[in-house]
Amino acid sequence: MPPARLTGSVGLEASGYSDEVVKWMREHGVRVFSRVRLRLSDGVELRGIVMPRPRVGDREVLVLKLDNGYNVGVHVSRVADVDVLGEYAATLEGKPGATAKVGEGLPRVHFLGTGGTIASRVDYVTGAVYPYFSAEEIYSMIPELEEIAVISAETLFSIFSEDMTPSHWSQLAQHVKKVFETEAPAGIVVAHGTDTMHYSAAALAFAARKLPGPVVFTGAQRSSDRPSSDAAVNVIGATLVAAQAPFAESVIAMHGSPDDRVVLAHRGVRARKMHSSRRDAFMSINSLPLARVDVVSRELKVLLGEYKPRSDEVEVHPRFSDKVALVKFYPGMPGDVLEFYGERGYRGLVLEGTGLGHVRSELIEVVRKLVKDGVVVVMTTQCLWGRVNMNVYRTGVELLEAGVVPAEDMLPETAFAKLSWILGQTEDVEEAKRLFRENLAYETSKRTEYITYPGAMWWEHAIRTPAQG
Amino acid sequence: MPPARLTGSVGLEASGYSDEVVKWMREHGVRVFSRVRLRLSDGVELRGIVMPRPRVGDREVLVLKLDNGYNVGVHVSRVADVDVLGEYAATLEGKPGATAKVGEGLPRVHFLGTGGTIASRVDYVTGAVYPYFSAEEIYSMIPELEEIAVISAETLFSIFSEDMTPSHWSQLAQHVKKVFETEAPAGIVVAHGTDTMHYSAAALAFAARKLPGPVVFTGAQRSSDRPSSDAAVNVIGATLVAAQAPFAESVIAMHGSPDDRVVLAHRGVRARKMHSSRRDAFMSINSLPLARVDVVSRELKVLLGEYKPRSDEVEVHPRFSDKVALVKFYPGMPGDVLEFYGERGYRGLVLEGTGLGHVRSELIEVVRKLVKDGVVVVMTTQCLWGRVNMNVYRTGVELLEAGVVPAEDMLPETAFAKLSWILGQTEDVEEAKRLFRENLAYETSKRTEYITYPGAMWWEHAIRTPAQG
Repeated sequence: MPPARLTGSVGLEASGYSDEVVKWMREHGVRVFSRVRLRLSDGVELRGIVMPRPRVGDREVLVLKLDNGYNVGVHVSRVADVDVLGEYAATLEGKPGATAKVGEGLPRVHFLGTGGTIASRVDYVTGAVYPYFSAEEIYSMIPELEEIAVISAETLFSIFSEDMTPSHWSQLAQHVKKVFETEAPAGIVVAHGTDTMHYSAAALAFAARKLPGPVVFTGAQRSSDRPSSDAAVNVIGATLVAAQAPFAESVIAMHGSPDDRVVLAHRGVRARKMHSSRRDAFMSINSLPLARVDVVSRELKVLLGEYKPRSDEVEVHPRFSDKVALVKFYPGMPGDVLEFYGERGYRGLVLEGTGLGHVRSELIEVVRKLVKDGVVVVMTTQCLWGRVNMNVYRTGVELLEAGVVPAEDMLPETAFAKLSWILGQTEDVEEAKRLFRENLAYETSKRTEYITYPGAMWWEHAIRTPAQG
Repeated sequence: MPPARLTGSVGLEASGYSDEVVKWMREHGVRVFSRVRLRLSDGVELRGIVMPRPRVGDREVLVLKLDNGYNVGVHVSRVADVDVLGEYAATLEGKPGATAKVGEGLPRVHFLGTGGTIASRVDYVTGAVYPYFSAEEIYSMIPELEEIAVISAETLFSIFSEDMTPSHWSQLAQHVKKVFETEAPAGIVVAHGTDTMHYSAAALAFAARKLPGPVVFTGAQRSSDRPSSDAAVNVIGATLVAAQAPFAESVIAMHGSPDDRVVLAHRGVRARKMHSSRRDAFMSINSLPLARVDVVSRELKVLLGEYKPRSDEVEVHPRFSDKVALVKFYPGMPGDVLEFYGERGYRGLVLEGTGLGHVRSELIEVVRKLVKDGVVVVMTTQCLWGRVNMNVYRTGVELLEAGVVPAEDMLPETAFAKLSWILGQTEDVEEAKRLFRENLAYETSKRTEYITYPGAMWWEHAIRTPAQG
């Protein structure tokens, strides 16, 4: 798998470097994205790509992206000698034939761009996101796709994923419906920032009751101008899932294994971003992933016994309420933190309690009042793994008596998406509670399998290569 | 390792069962905690201990705790035949010699009871917690301790851990100081509910700057009347750490391995309860555990290269501010959720952002205003693993410019305890920010080791026995 390639280039003036550095670069024929070998005054030799200057930091310091993916800063005064080895951007710009072809007999996959690292270019210079979601650009980034699917693409949003809201979930769900109804692709790939991908993928799982094919969220933890980028592997994996999967669920297809061969398809309702930077950041919690894809052999293997199959119908209910909050309990949390939501007219509250589903005794009265006032209050656990069980301790029993709905082994983020969706569907509080207790998209299980928790000593038995990162 | 034993018994009248069940029990000579063999009308045979009736559920249904630790409910009308095999409670009540002995040449370990499952008895009947923290009771529960340490014990609190507050952390820190100064034990074991144990252990790590020995938090995920209880293993492990460890840090000693041999000592500042019910619920995040103890061979192995050694001095700064909040960001979170804390006079805010440390753009102005008004705002990641890096994306850069302090690879819960402690030490906002950036108790690391994240496919390589749970 070759690393994803960079498109575009950046002028020296916009590079963010100081006048002195720009002058030095001009003198030595160095451009932004030039591949260079630097010999420093202390004898150290560095090879890498000259990056645009990030918005923060010393403008006199040249930023070099080394082949291992790390950035180093080098003050130009330390550089004794420089050789320009090539132009990184030019590699792609010169590549012929990067236009969309219609392959014979291949399944059709529709790409929806929403923003995020996977669709961002030179963002670290201007702060702006440049989407590249034309089919041509996707093919030119990842030529392997020409053998897998016929791709169409469009940009729905161009936002960082932390700016996604329940209103965006609604628009996305509506658009998914429209695409399946009008284009009838084998599946849809949603390019999405990884930060809140699991919230959006869970939301879509509830909104899309019946679909002809899967909706596959994918993204990148490392932007596609980095040699260690996961963008290409993830897009190929996501396309394979969209094209081949027997299921028609909302899933997250992201990097799984150190050798860049495996992409995992996690159920949106079971997935969580568990690492801020690693490429294998997404885990399924309280469940195995739904499927794994080998991006080299292009084989897809379903790992779970039950799933929603592809349907002839398209049934999507896109409304979400924005009057739901996710509130994590912490020691000493006072009652007014919860009262706030009642005062502001919230209709749903997802508590992230401790252990089996607890908050401090002082809050029980506040919760009772919120429930009495018609707020749907559900309980999840901040442990993330395991399930709430509110019958074991007095606190839990009293919270149940106060009307709290236990969320079983559902993730807090999933419970938030689910309650936002339910309260977009009904005004009836009792109906909302009834719906919340239903297992709508495999977001809970009666019994959590043993294999779904790494355990306190996972590191004792883990066999892995140090190449992963 | 024999299971921890139950003390005490419960009268039939207080058992919570219906009159009909109580009558049936009388007729068959069955008592609460009797060990029985039931033959059901469908031929099934069950062996277990008759439990008091939980406060919720059908009062006609006899609850039997099977030898595997699971509870089953059996309607008495289904019971064809019953044999009473013994009286579980009577086993211990009749045991002689369960009094505190002073072993020759053994290190002294002081136990502080604060409440929680490890110290709870028959709680499921009345909702009340009965502490058993006399040395006599600890020895009678776990006779092996007589060979490990000379134990003294006292009860500091009797509360569920979800009711712990920063004010309790202060009292605990003061008491730890007093015990080391007056009793000079080799170490202190704090029996604590597991729900918020990691918050308290982190808090103590900041409050206790220099100690002559470790403070070892321990607890139980399964109460000690359950055959699968982890109480005995954990207490033995914690006592070994308190008696033997070369370090004088605040750690959590909890069950590590399926074979009941290993107890891990996690740094309080690095530990998190990651499963709601499993015995190996505690993990170190972004770090290996500080040590492991084999409770059979009684050997302790330090796993990390750096630690605070035992000191001749006792330096404890026990004050914590209760004007700090932990706030988890979620998609669409409106600004007034954060403004609330400014209006209520909060001095510190720990944000649990997404990914590398983000919240939605709309909140940046609100954060800027909070910082301007003197609130210390710090950023952690809800991914839990990995570190925040606010130089990569525009949102992060703008949050830094607004004055947010990045918490590196610190857990949100630890950042909450740390900021609560710092704002208990100083009124000076700049001094508080400076202190927050210091690595005070190994709560951050410059570079996170590869081995500290299980990875998306941990289950591929995990080798474990199905006996764990």
